Amino acid sequence: MASLRLSSVLVTGSNRGLGLEFIRQLLQLPHPPQMLFATCRNPSGAQELQKLAAQHSNVRILPLDMENVASIQEAFLSVTDQLKGLGLNLLINNAGRAFSDSIHTESEENMHVLYQIHVSSNLKICQTFLPLLKKAAQTGPQDALSCSRAAIINMSSTAGSISELLGWELGPCLSYRCSKAALNMLTRCLGLALKKEGILCVAIHPGWVQTDMGTSSTFKPPLKKEESVQGMLKVFSTLSEENSGGFYSWEGKTLSW
Amino acid sequence: MASLRLSSVLVTGSNRGLGLEFIRQLLQLPHPPQMLFATCRNPSGAQELQKLAAQHSNVRILPLDMENVASIQEAFLSVTDQLKGLGLNLLINNAGRAFSDSIHTESEENMHVLYQIHVSSNLKICQTFLPLLKKAAQTGPQDALSCSRAAIINMSSTAGSISELLGWELGPCLSYRCSKAALNMLTRCLGLALKKEGILCVAIHPGWVQTDMGTSSTFKPPLKKEESVQGMLKVFSTLSEENSGGFYSWEGKTLSW
Ligand SMILES: NC(=O)c1ccc[n+]([C@@H]2O[C@H](COP(=O)([O-])OP(=O)(O)OC[C@H]3O[C@@H](n4cnc5c(N)ncnc54)[C@H](OP(=O)(O)O)[C@@H]3O)[C@@H](O)[C@H]2O)c1
Ligand SMILES: NC(=O)c1ccc[n+]([C@@H]2O[C@H](COP(=O)([O-])OP(=O)(O)OC[C@H]3O[C@@H](n4cnc5c(N)ncnc54)[C@H](OP(=O)(O)O)[C@@H]3O)[C@@H](O)[C@H]2O)c1
Repeated sequence: MASLRLSSVLVTGSNRGLGLEFIRQLLQLPHPPQMLFATCRNPSGAQELQKLAAQHSNVRILPLDMENVASIQEAFLSVTDQLKGLGLNLLINNAGRAFSDSIHTESEENMHVLYQIHVSSNLKICQTFLPLLKKAAQTGPQDALSCSRAAIINMSSTAGSISELLGWELGPCLSYRCSKAALNMLTRCLGLALKKEGILCVAIHPGWVQTDMGTSSTFKPPLKKEESVQGMLKVFSTLSEENSGGFYSWEGKTLSW
Repeated sequence: MASLRLSSVLVTGSNRGLGLEFIRQLLQLPHPPQMLFATCRNPSGAQELQKLAAQHSNVRILPLDMENVASIQEAFLSVTDQLKGLGLNLLINNAGRAFSDSIHTESEENMHVLYQIHVSSNLKICQTFLPLLKKAAQTGPQDALSCSRAAIINMSSTAGSISELLGWELGPCLSYRCSKAALNMLTRCLGLALKKEGILCVAIHPGWVQTDMGTSSTFKPPLKKEESVQGMLKVFSTLSEENSGGFYSWEGKTLSW
């Protein structure tokens, strides 16, 4: 992990689960980011995050609600202001929700909310923060793509892999699967389109992890948050040009669409 | 094609393009459907379709707007009424739209409209017409899945194949690609979930076809509507259980996600 040198990182949905664990472990890197933008939809209720921010002046908590597009622009203005002319190295699009519905019970509303959170708002965040990612790409090492230069990580899932369909026997989760498959497509397109700007874009599957989302009444996931995020950060440190637009597991395995 | 024996078929977006060509060629089958429900969002402007309906009493034109969920339920009531207790054999979810936007210009609105048309309204149609498809499955040949028994065909595209990305060099079409990738996921899930009900579900790529959608100012597609639909009907006649949830070209090739 010594090779991850991130001046600035933004994580969405960082008040609990994997997002919060990212903030924790990024703070423990040999070279922790100078600016760590921890966004969540309700900062005043984010107690764990507030504690971390009280201990670490580089943690900046910002409101960002994936269901409220205006909050993306507001977060961008605040981040730009705090970066004082510097770029943003790493954007981790982590926020997510899930519903377990089947093809019989799935609602239009669920379909649209999850598409907004996982796809259209993630795209909006990429579009909005692009000037800051570009700035980082232009001022970082010019030879290769890397997370330390400029990168977008989209938190996907093998539940959204059309060939793998992780967990089908435990829950159909139709709206979740459709939105994550679309997120994989978005990642592939961003990877192709942003390569020439020096920005890497990758989809990652965190494994099946013991978070609120991963856990159900009938199933305890095999992975702890700590292991998953440790694995993902290790993967981030190895990503380069040939990975752009790809889909990887927390252990660095190439996944199929 | 002699083996396609469809008592009833419903086609969405049947006023022009591939949808209209489906109606034309279904009428020319050795055993044409007794009921051919040709839906479109604006029946009064559907002149070609009106001509066909004037010549063929089995063609029933119905309003169905993919952007208006209530119209799906209304179409269902009318179809149920006209079928007089019989089931629906084949549902062709054909209606579609496209935008050419890039990751820089793509709008939230485009993202949502195409997701609604290609994914959530297609799901809604499947949910709504499921009782009629089930009825056909129960009264048809009980041994195997087939289009002649009960089937859903989703018109997809290799533009929505994350591995193939058909036409990337001609246009990013971000909202279109994301929605069609999600439609492929929907198809896979429907295929798995409906197998036990005797209903087949498949995604098909019609080829790159000379329709309003397929044609651009810089590119004339290689395929004529007539060839594409002829190929697809041939594929439909061969589909069986092992194809359920799969993704095929108009020539019957298995496509990758
Ligand atoms: N856990 C797994 O096994 C697993 C597997 C595959 C993929 N993933 C993916 O990993 C990511 C993180 O999941 P997790 O396991 O950490 O889930 P989690 O513990 O349920 O946390 C979800 C996070 O997303 C936030 N969020 C939800 N809706 C939001 C919105 N509209 N605006 C802003 N933030 C929102 C939540 O904030 P609130 O507290 O305000 O709700 C929370 O911080 C998700 O994208 C998920 O799909 C997880
Ligand atoms: N042509 C190709 O090369 C190609 C390639 C791959 C996949 N496809 C797919 O094949 C299908 C048919 O495409 P096409 O080439 O025939 O396109 P087209 O000639 O542009 O026809 C599109 C049809 O969809 C209908 N439609 C659009 N929005 C609708 C809505 N909200 N409600 C109801 N109907 C609506 C249109 O009706 P209006 O007249 O009212 O607009 C029209 O009947 C689409 O799903 C498309 O994605 C086409």
